Amino acid sequence: MTDRRLSIALPAWVDDVVDWTQQYPTDDARMRLAISLAAENIARGTGGPFGAAIVEEDTGRLVSVGLNRVVPENNSILHAEMLALMLAQQRVGSYTLGAPGLPAHTLISSCDPCAMCLGATLWSGVRRLVCGATRDDAMQARFDEGPVFPESYRYLEQRGITIVHGVLREEARAVLERYAAEGEIYNG
Amino acid sequence: MTDRRLSIALPAWVDDVVDWTQQYPTDDARMRLAISLAAENIARGTGGPFGAAIVEEDTGRLVSVGLNRVVPENNSILHAEMLALMLAQQRVGSYTLGAPGLPAHTLISSCDPCAMCLGATLWSGVRRLVCGATRDDAMQARFDEGPVFPESYRYLEQRGITIVHGVLREEARAVLERYAAEGEIYNG
Repeated sequence: MTDRRLSIALPAWVDDVVDWTQQYPTDDARMRLAISLAAENIARGTGGPFGAAIVEEDTGRLVSVGLNRVVPENNSILHAEMLALMLAQQRVGSYTLGAPGLPAHTLISSCDPCAMCLGATLWSGVRRLVCGATRDDAMQARFDEGPVFPESYRYLEQRGITIVHGVLREEARAVLERYAAEGEIYNG
Repeated sequence: MTDRRLSIALPAWVDDVVDWTQQYPTDDARMRLAISLAAENIARGTGGPFGAAIVEEDTGRLVSVGLNRVVPENNSILHAEMLALMLAQQRVGSYTLGAPGLPAHTLISSCDPCAMCLGATLWSGVRRLVCGATRDDAMQARFDEGPVFPESYRYLEQRGITIVHGVLREEARAVLERYAAEGEIYNG
Protein backbone atom coordinates (compact mmCIF):
# COMPACT_ATOMS: atom_id res chain seq x y z
CA MET A 1 0.00 0.00 0.00
CA THR A 2 1.21 3.47 -0.85
CA ASP A 3 -0.20 6.94 -1.09
CA ARG A 4 -2.75 7.11 -3.86
CA ARG A 5 -3.62 10.80 -3.42
CA LEU A 6 -2.13 13.94 -4.92
CA SER A 7 -2.80 17.41 -3.69
CA ILE A 8 -1.66 20.20 -6.00
CA ALA A 9 -2.06 23.95 -5.62
CA LEU A 10 -1.04 27.23 -7.14
CA PRO A 11 0.71 29.48 -4.63
CA ALA A 12 -1.55 31.76 -2.60
CA TRP A 13 -0.06 34.91 -4.14
CA VAL A 14 -1.87 34.15 -7.40
CA ASP A 15 -5.09 35.50 -5.94
CA ASP A 16 -3.32 38.71 -4.99
CA VAL A 17 -1.96 39.47 -8.44
CA VAL A 18 -4.66 38.09 -10.78
CA ASP A 19 -7.81 40.15 -11.26
CA TRP A 20 -10.48 37.54 -11.92
CA THR A 21 -13.08 40.15 -12.82
CA GLN A 22 -11.01 41.67 -15.62
CA GLN A 23 -11.58 40.57 -19.20
CA TYR A 24 -8.81 39.76 -21.64
CA PRO A 25 -10.19 40.51 -25.10
CA THR A 26 -6.92 40.56 -27.07
CA ASP A 27 -4.04 38.13 -27.44
CA ASP A 28 -1.68 40.86 -26.24
CA ALA A 29 -3.67 41.35 -23.02
CA ARG A 30 -3.78 37.59 -22.45
CA MET A 31 -0.08 37.19 -23.10
CA ARG A 32 0.73 40.07 -20.76
CA LEU A 33 -1.05 38.12 -18.02
CA ALA A 34 0.84 34.88 -18.80
CA ILE A 35 4.18 36.70 -18.87
CA SER A 36 3.44 38.52 -15.62
CA LEU A 37 2.69 35.18 -13.95
CA ALA A 38 5.97 33.75 -15.22
CA ALA A 39 7.90 36.78 -13.99
CA GLU A 40 6.14 36.80 -10.63
CA ASN A 41 6.78 33.07 -10.22
CA ILE A 42 10.53 33.51 -10.44
CA ALA A 43 10.53 36.75 -8.41
CA ARG A 44 8.77 34.94 -5.56
CA GLY A 45 10.82 31.75 -5.93
CA THR A 46 7.77 29.55 -6.43
CA GLY A 47 8.75 27.83 -9.68
CA GLY A 48 10.13 28.11 -13.18
CA PRO A 49 9.79 30.98 -15.69
CA PHE A 50 6.58 29.90 -17.37
CA GLY A 51 3.00 31.15 -17.06
CA ALA A 52 -0.26 30.21 -18.76
CA ALA A 53 -3.94 31.04 -18.77
CA ILE A 54 -7.21 29.80 -20.20
CA VAL A 55 -9.79 32.31 -21.42
CA GLU A 56 -13.11 32.08 -23.16
CA GLU A 57 -12.22 33.09 -26.70
CA ASP A 58 -15.23 35.30 -27.45
CA THR A 59 -15.76 37.07 -24.13
CA GLY A 60 -12.14 37.18 -22.94
CA ARG A 61 -13.33 35.93 -19.55
CA LEU A 62 -10.52 34.41 -17.52
CA VAL A 63 -11.15 30.76 -16.59
CA SER A 64 -7.87 29.63 -15.02
CA VAL A 65 -4.17 30.38 -14.73
CA GLY A 66 -1.11 28.15 -14.42
CA LEU A 67 2.49 28.41 -13.35
CA ASN A 68 5.46 26.13 -13.55
CA ARG A 69 5.48 24.27 -10.21
CA VAL A 70 7.87 21.41 -11.03
CA VAL A 71 10.53 21.96 -8.41
CA PRO A 72 8.43 23.14 -5.43
CA GLU A 73 5.83 20.39 -5.90
CA ASN A 74 8.33 17.62 -6.78
CA ASN A 75 6.29 16.94 -9.91
CA SER A 76 7.69 17.08 -13.44
CA ILE A 77 4.16 17.16 -14.90
CA LEU A 78 3.37 20.56 -13.42
CA HIS A 79 4.24 22.83 -16.31
CA ALA A 80 2.21 26.04 -16.44
CA GLU A 81 -0.02 24.82 -19.26
CA MET A 82 -0.85 21.57 -17.46
CA LEU A 83 -1.99 23.35 -14.33
CA ALA A 84 -4.06 25.86 -16.30
CA LEU A 85 -5.75 23.05 -18.25
CA MET A 86 -6.50 20.92 -15.18
CA LEU A 87 -7.88 23.88 -13.24
CA ALA A 88 -10.02 25.00 -16.19
CA GLN A 89 -11.52 21.53 -16.62
CA GLN A 90 -12.21 21.34 -12.90
CA ARG A 91 -13.92 24.71 -13.08
CA VAL A 92 -16.19 23.88 -16.02
CA GLY A 93 -16.79 20.36 -14.71
CA SER A 94 -15.78 18.52 -17.87
CA TYR A 95 -12.77 16.55 -19.10
CA THR A 96 -12.97 18.57 -22.28
CA LEU A 97 -13.18 22.34 -22.68
CA GLY A 98 -14.78 21.60 -26.05
CA ALA A 99 -17.85 19.90 -24.57
CA PRO A 100 -21.24 20.72 -26.12
CA GLY A 101 -22.70 23.85 -24.60
CA LEU A 102 -19.35 25.30 -23.55
CA PRO A 103 -17.91 28.42 -25.18
CA ALA A 104 -14.68 28.07 -27.19
CA HIS A 105 -11.58 28.21 -24.98
CA THR A 106 -8.06 29.46 -25.70
CA LEU A 107 -4.83 28.41 -23.99
CA ILE A 108 -2.22 31.14 -23.65
CA SER A 109 1.33 30.12 -22.80
CA SER A 110 4.30 32.39 -22.21
CA CYS A 111 6.41 29.94 -24.27
CA ASP A 112 5.89 27.41 -27.07
CA PRO A 113 4.68 24.27 -25.28
CA CYS A 114 6.96 21.29 -24.79
CA ALA A 115 6.02 17.89 -26.24
CA MET A 116 3.99 16.96 -23.16
CA CYS A 117 2.04 20.21 -23.06
CA LEU A 118 1.40 20.17 -26.81
CA GLY A 119 -0.10 16.69 -26.45
CA ALA A 120 -2.14 17.87 -23.48
CA THR A 121 -3.41 20.81 -25.54
CA LEU A 122 -4.79 18.37 -28.10
CA TRP A 123 -6.73 16.38 -25.47
CA SER A 124 -7.93 19.44 -23.56
CA GLY A 125 -10.61 20.63 -25.94
CA VAL A 126 -9.19 24.14 -26.40
CA ARG A 127 -9.75 25.64 -29.85
CA ARG A 128 -6.81 28.06 -29.93
CA LEU A 129 -3.25 28.03 -28.61
CA VAL A 130 -1.39 31.34 -28.28
CA CYS A 131 2.35 31.27 -27.54
CA GLY A 132 4.91 33.93 -26.55
CA ALA A 133 8.57 32.95 -26.50
CA THR A 134 9.59 30.38 -29.09
CA ARG A 135 11.08 26.93 -28.85
CA ASP A 136 14.42 28.46 -29.85
CA ASP A 137 14.15 31.01 -27.05
CA ALA A 138 13.52 28.21 -24.55
CA MET A 139 16.48 26.21 -25.83
CA GLN A 140 18.69 29.30 -25.68
CA ALA A 141 17.73 29.49 -22.02
CA ARG A 142 18.78 25.80 -21.72
CA PHE A 143 15.29 24.32 -21.47
CA ASP A 144 14.69 21.17 -23.48
CA GLU A 145 11.33 21.23 -25.27
CA GLY A 146 11.23 17.53 -26.19
CA PRO A 147 10.10 15.89 -29.45
CA VAL A 148 8.08 18.68 -31.06
CA PHE A 149 8.33 18.90 -34.85
CA PRO A 150 6.61 21.02 -37.52
CA GLU A 151 4.30 18.07 -38.17
CA SER A 152 3.35 18.06 -34.49
CA TYR A 153 1.76 21.47 -34.92
CA ARG A 154 0.16 20.38 -38.18
CA TYR A 155 -1.37 17.42 -36.34
CA LEU A 156 -3.17 19.76 -33.94
CA GLU A 157 -4.18 22.17 -36.70
CA GLN A 158 -5.71 19.30 -38.68
CA ARG A 159 -7.87 18.60 -35.64
CA GLY A 160 -9.20 22.13 -35.64
CA ILE A 161 -6.85 23.91 -33.22
CA THR A 162 -5.61 27.34 -34.33
CA ILE A 163 -2.03 28.06 -33.23
CA VAL A 164 -0.42 31.49 -32.95
CA HIS A 165 3.29 31.94 -32.18
CA GLY A 166 5.41 34.84 -31.05
CA VAL A 167 2.89 37.11 -29.31
CA LEU A 168 4.92 39.61 -27.22
CA ARG A 169 7.91 37.39 -27.90
CA GLU A 170 10.54 39.84 -26.67
CA GLU A 171 8.88 40.34 -23.29
CA ALA A 172 8.31 36.60 -22.92
CA ARG A 173 11.91 35.78 -23.83
CA ALA A 174 13.23 38.34 -21.37
CA VAL A 175 11.74 36.33 -18.47
CA LEU A 176 13.45 33.16 -19.69
CA GLU A 177 16.76 34.96 -20.01
CA ARG A 178 16.51 36.44 -16.53
CA TYR A 179 15.85 33.00 -15.09
CA ALA A 180 18.60 31.32 -17.10
CA ALA A 181 21.09 33.83 -15.78
CA GLU A 182 20.46 32.77 -12.18
CA GLY A 183 18.00 29.90 -11.81
CA GLU A 184 18.10 26.17 -11.61
CA ILE A 185 17.39 24.52 -14.95
CA TYR A 186 15.66 21.34 -13.92
CA ASN A 187 15.71 19.28 -17.07
CA GLY A 188 18.11 18.58 -19.87
CA MET B 1 -10.68 34.53 -7.57
CA THR B 2 -11.15 30.89 -8.46
CA ASP B 3 -10.19 27.53 -7.07
CA ARG B 4 -6.42 27.11 -7.21
CA ARG B 5 -6.36 23.59 -5.72
CA LEU B 6 -6.58 20.16 -7.31
CA SER B 7 -7.18 16.97 -5.43
CA ILE B 8 -6.57 13.79 -7.42
CA ALA B 9 -6.80 10.18 -6.28
CA LEU B 10 -6.67 6.65 -7.54
CA PRO B 11 -9.81 4.70 -6.65
CA ALA B 12 -9.76 2.92 -3.28
CA TRP B 13 -9.96 -0.52 -4.91
CA VAL B 14 -6.35 -0.15 -6.06
CA ASP B 15 -5.15 -1.07 -2.58
CA ASP B 16 -7.29 -4.20 -2.64
CA VAL B 17 -5.90 -5.56 -5.90
CA VAL B 18 -2.26 -4.39 -5.86
CA ASP B 19 0.19 -6.29 -3.68
CA TRP B 20 2.73 -3.65 -2.70
CA THR B 21 5.05 -6.19 -1.10
CA GLN B 22 5.43 -8.27 -4.26
CA GLN B 23 8.40 -7.71 -6.55
CA TYR B 24 8.17 -7.47 -10.32
CA PRO B 25 11.52 -8.65 -11.65
CA THR B 26 10.56 -9.24 -15.30
CA ASP B 27 8.92 -7.08 -17.95
CA ASP B 28 6.22 -9.73 -18.32
CA ALA B 29 5.36 -9.59 -14.62
CA ARG B 30 5.29 -5.80 -14.73
CA MET B 31 3.11 -5.74 -17.81
CA ARG B 32 0.72 -8.25 -16.29
CA LEU B 33 0.21 -5.79 -13.45
CA ALA B 34 -0.40 -2.86 -15.82
CA ILE B 35 -2.85 -4.86 -17.90
CA SER B 36 -4.70 -6.10 -14.83
CA LEU B 37 -5.10 -2.49 -13.66
CA ALA B 38 -6.48 -1.50 -17.07
CA ALA B 39 -8.92 -4.42 -17.06
CA GLU B 40 -9.99 -3.79 -13.48
CA ASN B 41 -10.51 -0.10 -14.23
CA ILE B 42 -13.06 -0.80 -16.93
CA ALA B 43 -14.69 -3.67 -15.00
CA ARG B 44 -15.30 -1.33 -12.07
CA GLY B 45 -16.29 1.62 -14.24
CA THR B 46 -13.61 3.91 -12.82
CA GLY B 47 -11.94 5.04 -16.04
CA GLY B 48 -10.51 4.11 -19.42
CA PRO B 49 -8.71 0.92 -20.48
CA PHE B 50 -5.17 1.92 -19.60
CA GLY B 51 -2.90 0.97 -16.70
CA ALA B 52 0.67 1.83 -15.76
CA ALA B 53 3.24 1.25 -13.07
CA ILE B 54 6.67 2.45 -11.98
CA VAL B 55 9.21 -0.04 -10.65
CA GLU B 56 12.80 0.14 -9.59
CA GLU B 57 14.56 -1.47 -12.53
CA ASP B 58 17.09 -3.56 -10.61
CA THR B 59 15.04 -4.77 -7.65
CA GLY B 60 11.63 -4.91 -9.31
CA ARG B 61 10.19 -3.08 -6.31
CA LEU B 62 6.86 -1.43 -7.08
CA VAL B 63 6.91 2.33 -6.57
CA SER B 64 3.54 3.48 -7.93
CA VAL B 65 0.65 2.55 -10.18
CA GLY B 66 -1.60 4.59 -12.44
CA LEU B 67 -4.95 4.28 -14.16
CA ASN B 68 -6.78 6.31 -16.74
CA ARG B 69 -9.01 8.66 -14.71
CA VAL B 70 -9.96 11.20 -17.39
CA VAL B 71 -13.73 10.90 -17.32
CA PRO B 72 -14.38 10.35 -13.59
CA GLU B 73 -12.00 13.14 -12.54
CA ASN B 74 -13.00 15.57 -15.35
CA ASN B 75 -9.33 15.87 -16.20
CA SER B 76 -7.88 15.09 -19.63
CA ILE B 77 -4.35 15.02 -18.19
CA LEU B 78 -5.01 11.95 -16.07
CA HIS B 79 -3.77 9.21 -18.32
CA ALA B 80 -2.45 6.14 -16.51
CA GLU B 81 1.20 7.06 -17.12
CA MET B 82 0.73 10.59 -15.79
CA LEU B 83 -0.73 9.40 -12.52
CA ALA B 84 1.95 6.76 -12.08
CA LEU B 85 4.69 9.33 -12.71
CA MET B 86 3.24 11.95 -10.36
CA LEU B 87 2.68 9.43 -7.58
CA ALA B 88 6.19 8.01 -7.97
CA GLN B 89 7.78 11.45 -7.78
CA GLN B 90 5.70 12.27 -4.73
CA ARG B 91 6.83 9.02 -3.13
CA VAL B 92 10.55 9.53 -3.74
CA GLY B 93 10.28 13.24 -2.95
CA SER B 94 11.90 14.49 -6.16
CA TYR B 95 10.73 16.05 -9.42
CA THR B 96 12.95 13.56 -11.21
CA LEU B 97 13.14 9.81 -10.74
CA GLY B 98 16.67 10.12 -12.09
CA ALA B 99 17.95 12.21 -9.19
CA PRO B 100 21.39 11.40 -7.79
CA GLY B 101 21.19 8.62 -5.21
CA LEU B 102 17.96 7.15 -6.57
CA PRO B 103 17.87 3.72 -8.23
CA ALA B 104 16.98 3.55 -11.94
CA HIS B 105 13.23 3.57 -12.53
CA THR B 106 11.13 1.99 -15.30
CA LEU B 107 7.70 3.08 -16.52
CA ILE B 108 5.41 0.28 -17.67
CA SER B 109 2.35 1.18 -19.72
CA SER B 110 -0.33 -1.16 -21.01
CA CYS B 111 -0.24 0.80 -24.30
CA ASP B 112 2.23 2.89 -26.30
CA PRO B 113 2.06 6.35 -24.70
CA CYS B 114 0.27 9.21 -26.41
CA ALA B 115 2.18 12.39 -27.31
CA MET B 116 1.55 13.92 -23.88
CA CYS B 117 2.66 10.87 -21.95
CA LEU B 118 5.74 10.37 -24.13
CA GLY B 119 6.77 13.93 -23.39
CA ALA B 120 6.09 13.37 -19.70
CA THR B 121 8.25 10.24 -19.79
CA LEU B 122 11.17 12.33 -21.00
CA TRP B 123 10.85 14.82 -18.12
CA SER B 124 10.18 12.19 -15.47
CA GLY B 125 13.69 10.81 -15.09
CA VAL B 126 12.76 7.19 -15.84
CA ARG B 127 15.46 5.22 -17.62
CA ARG B 128 13.27 2.63 -19.35
CA LEU B 129 9.81 2.63 -20.90
CA VAL B 130 8.04 -0.71 -21.45
CA CYS B 131 4.85 -0.77 -23.56
CA GLY B 132 2.16 -3.39 -24.23
CA ALA B 133 -0.43 -2.66 -26.89
CA THR B 134 0.81 -0.60 -29.83
CA ARG B 135 -0.21 2.75 -31.24
CA ASP B 136 -1.98 0.87 -34.02
CA ASP B 137 -3.90 -1.19 -31.47
CA ALA B 138 -5.03 2.00 -29.72
CA MET B 139 -6.11 3.59 -32.99
CA GLN B 140 -8.00 0.43 -33.95
CA ALA B 141 -9.87 0.87 -30.69
CA ARG B 142 -10.59 4.49 -31.79
CA PHE B 143 -8.18 6.21 -29.42
CA ASP B 144 -6.14 9.03 -30.90
CA GLU B 145 -2.49 8.92 -29.81
CA GLY B 146 -1.56 12.41 -30.97
CA PRO B 147 1.62 13.60 -32.70
CA VAL B 148 4.02 10.74 -31.99
CA PHE B 149 6.46 9.91 -34.78
CA PRO B 150 9.41 7.51 -35.12
CA GLU B 151 11.71 10.47 -34.43
CA SER B 152 9.81 11.12 -31.19
CA TYR B 153 11.04 7.78 -29.85
CA ARG B 154 14.52 8.44 -31.18
CA TYR B 155 14.53 11.76 -29.30
CA LEU B 156 13.98 9.93 -26.00
CA GLU B 157 16.48 7.21 -26.85
CA GLN B 158 19.13 9.80 -27.63
CA ARG B 159 18.60 11.11 -24.09
CA GLY B 160 19.33 7.72 -22.61
CA ILE B 161 15.85 6.20 -22.27
CA THR B 162 15.51 2.57 -23.37
CA ILE B 163 12.14 1.80 -24.99
CA VAL B 164 10.59 -1.64 -25.37
CA HIS B 165 7.37 -2.20 -27.34
CA GLY B 166 4.87 -5.03 -27.57
CA VAL B 167 5.33 -6.82 -24.24
CA LEU B 168 2.26 -9.10 -23.81
CA ARG B 169 0.75 -7.20 -26.71
CA GLU B 170 -2.15 -9.59 -27.31
CA GLU B 171 -3.36 -9.44 -23.71
CA ALA B 172 -2.97 -5.67 -23.66
CA ARG B 173 -4.85 -5.23 -26.92
CA ALA B 174 -7.69 -7.46 -25.70
CA VAL B 175 -8.50 -4.92 -22.96
CA LEU B 176 -8.68 -2.10 -25.49
CA GLU B 177 -10.93 -4.15 -27.74
CA ARG B 178 -13.26 -5.03 -24.89
CA TYR B 179 -13.58 -1.36 -23.99
CA ALA B 180 -14.04 -0.19 -27.58
CA ALA B 181 -16.91 -2.64 -27.97
CA GLU B 182 -18.88 -0.98 -25.18
CA GLY B 183 -17.20 2.06 -23.66
CA GLU B 184 -17.15 5.77 -24.17
CA ILE B 185 -14.21 6.92 -26.28
CA TYR B 186 -13.46 10.31 -24.86
CA ASN B 187 -11.17 11.86 -27.43
CA GLY B 188 -10.87 11.95 -31.18
